[in-house]
Amino acid sequence: MMLRRLTILGSTGSIGVNALKVVGNLSNQFQVICLSANKNSDLLIRQAHKYHPEMVVIIDQTAARKVEQSLSGTGITVLRGTAGLTEAAGRSDVDLMLNAVVGSAGMVPTIAALKAGTDIALSNKESLVMAGAIIKRLRLESGSRIFPVDSEHSAIWQCLAGEDMADVKRLILTGSGGPFRTRVKSTFPEITVTEALNHPNWKMGHKITIDSATMMNKGLEVIEAYWLFELDETQIDIVIHPQSIIHSLVEFKDGSVKAQLGLPDMKIPIQYALTYPRHSSSQWEKLDLVQLGQLTFEAPDFDKFPCLGLAFAVLQQGGSAPAVLNVANEQAVYRFLKREIRFTAIPHLIEEAVEQHQLIDQPDIDDICELEKWTTNFVVNWKG
Amino acid sequence: MMLRRLTILGSTGSIGVNALKVVGNLSNQFQVICLSANKNSDLLIRQAHKYHPEMVVIIDQTAARKVEQSLSGTGITVLRGTAGLTEAAGRSDVDLMLNAVVGSAGMVPTIAALKAGTDIALSNKESLVMAGAIIKRLRLESGSRIFPVDSEHSAIWQCLAGEDMADVKRLILTGSGGPFRTRVKSTFPEITVTEALNHPNWKMGHKITIDSATMMNKGLEVIEAYWLFELDETQIDIVIHPQSIIHSLVEFKDGSVKAQLGLPDMKIPIQYALTYPRHSSSQWEKLDLVQLGQLTFEAPDFDKFPCLGLAFAVLQQGGSAPAVLNVANEQAVYRFLKREIRFTAIPHLIEEAVEQHQLIDQPDIDDICELEKWTTNFVVNWKG
Repeated sequence: MMLRRLTILGSTGSIGVNALKVVGNLSNQFQVICLSANKNSDLLIRQAHKYHPEMVVIIDQTAARKVEQSLSGTGITVLRGTAGLTEAAGRSDVDLMLNAVVGSAGMVPTIAALKAGTDIALSNKESLVMAGAIIKRLRLESGSRIFPVDSEHSAIWQCLAGEDMADVKRLILTGSGGPFRTRVKSTFPEITVTEALNHPNWKMGHKITIDSATMMNKGLEVIEAYWLFELDETQIDIVIHPQSIIHSLVEFKDGSVKAQLGLPDMKIPIQYALTYPRHSSSQWEKLDLVQLGQLTFEAPDFDKFPCLGLAFAVLQQGGSAPAVLNVANEQAVYRFLKREIRFTAIPHLIEEAVEQHQLIDQPDIDDICELEKWTTNFVVNWKG
Repeated sequence: MMLRRLTILGSTGSIGVNALKVVGNLSNQFQVICLSANKNSDLLIRQAHKYHPEMVVIIDQTAARKVEQSLSGTGITVLRGTAGLTEAAGRSDVDLMLNAVVGSAGMVPTIAALKAGTDIALSNKESLVMAGAIIKRLRLESGSRIFPVDSEHSAIWQCLAGEDMADVKRLILTGSGGPFRTRVKSTFPEITVTEALNHPNWKMGHKITIDSATMMNKGLEVIEAYWLFELDETQIDIVIHPQSIIHSLVEFKDGSVKAQLGLPDMKIPIQYALTYPRHSSSQWEKLDLVQLGQLTFEAPDFDKFPCLGLAFAVLQQGGSAPAVLNVANEQAVYRFLKREIRFTAIPHLIEEAVEQHQLIDQPDIDDICELEKWTTNFVVNWKG
């Protein structure tokens, strides 16, 4: 079998590290072409020595010097900054690019890969949230495919295998409900960063963990599902399922419902995106329903978690609104992590940014990049 | 769209009646060619007037006279007895035959339809239990397809859509556990017919309801799954799931698990077998996970329900053993329903019949019919 040429952007993050475990397990299937990191130079250097990519990219200019020194003489090309990232993503000699960049910085690499005709295993949901319509058009033009990596979208994708989209009644995204599912709403203003970073089921990076606590993660996933599966937003529902075992479901028009289940282990959806349409053997721990005993379900609480309603609202508004929601959320989360704003300020800030921005019906990439700057400024300068 | 020519054997039973509801709902897709009943002449006559088949079959000779009189002048041909059933099943001008005959009487019609090259929606699991190897060979020769109707097998079939069988690690058949899941084993000898007919979730015919109470139904389903999906018996597991919402699951080699869910309503799997590979719209009540609240899982109790172990044992023995198990079970159930033997005598009788019969490694249909007579005699004359 020919080795598939694989690029992993964001290789030092939680998804990237798990992806390299998957690749290590299936080393007869993949050749790693490029790895990238934001600023974790030590781990990137270790990964480079282990997987021998042709190229690494490091965003942070200070960290770049260390990477260049450590890899000098290895024959591995070192690129710097976002320009380097775009160059790596745009290579046309790669079969599959896993985009596990965190946040809106992932959008430009997604677009570069689509233009190069490369298939994308997409963990960076922000790409679709910000530029869904543009990505849809580029996919059609280039024939590139997007394979979801998010556990929910991987579940839906797996449930749709062999099915006709015309038979789908609705998608049901499950969510754990995050760490504050049962917390009383009146105490939300006092939520600390430590509390918000304590996710009950999934071990993830900081940004997505806070998004899970506000449930904006589920809101972003609704928008992601809208663009990935091309259904009406009224066909996307959310059900709270605290055990995170059923990763999502598809209801068909005859009342039959398909679900994909598994332990909350990102290696499963990552591997499926890399090996699609096959399910290659793995030695990770497996689901045992009897040991688990029970699965429970609740309605989502739109009152306690206003981010959910904001996500559906921007989807209805369309145009540039989802991009602004995404950037405002990202910047608000960073301010919360820096303890500059309260937990409950996050949805307020997002709502204000979306309301105050000048809506563009069909934004191009330049419009979105301009709005990204405007929104970042808006949030960074917000005094509350 | 051309109407698909459909025969329904066993149209007055629970599956048959539900199938005609499905057909009524999708009347622009099907033309009913033939209906059959065992002895419920009144319902068969009403169905014939409503659906205008070309032909009806009535097994019971006394009931036949009434059917013939009522349908005289309608142009509907009336056939009698098992010979008539075989003739109807063997028509080569039918696109799809739903075999919802109860018990071992369904085997010969299944074989007749396969020889005629007709696709079969198979509710009669006994066909596969008794003549799995023969049916497998006939399928390959004729190109006929078998579409499962049992909710569990329909679930597995749906989960396998678009998948490669080489990627399947195991099938997980769910079972409600029946009415005696929590009953103390020492009181099993006192189980009454009324208690055994009181299934918690599914409204079904008497034979299958008693099979659910002894859990032989799940045992027969293991054998059915073995022949339908052609996996090793060690790849078929059972999990008890009292709510009967997850109808079965497939675990893949990567740890991903797919499940099919729905309300316990046989119209869903019946319709899917009739409309495969599509999920046509229906107006039946739909699953609401939030309203349901929880799904629970337990290990099956092989000690309380010895029929389960017997089913796995005959599958390992192979040859004629499953056929004898099936006939012995059927006759024992009828004796229990007539209050001639105790509930706990059912597995004893089956075990004795399987042990005492002369095992044939590769039985042909004549061998199986002979064994059916032998086993029936054995059970009918058993004094306990």
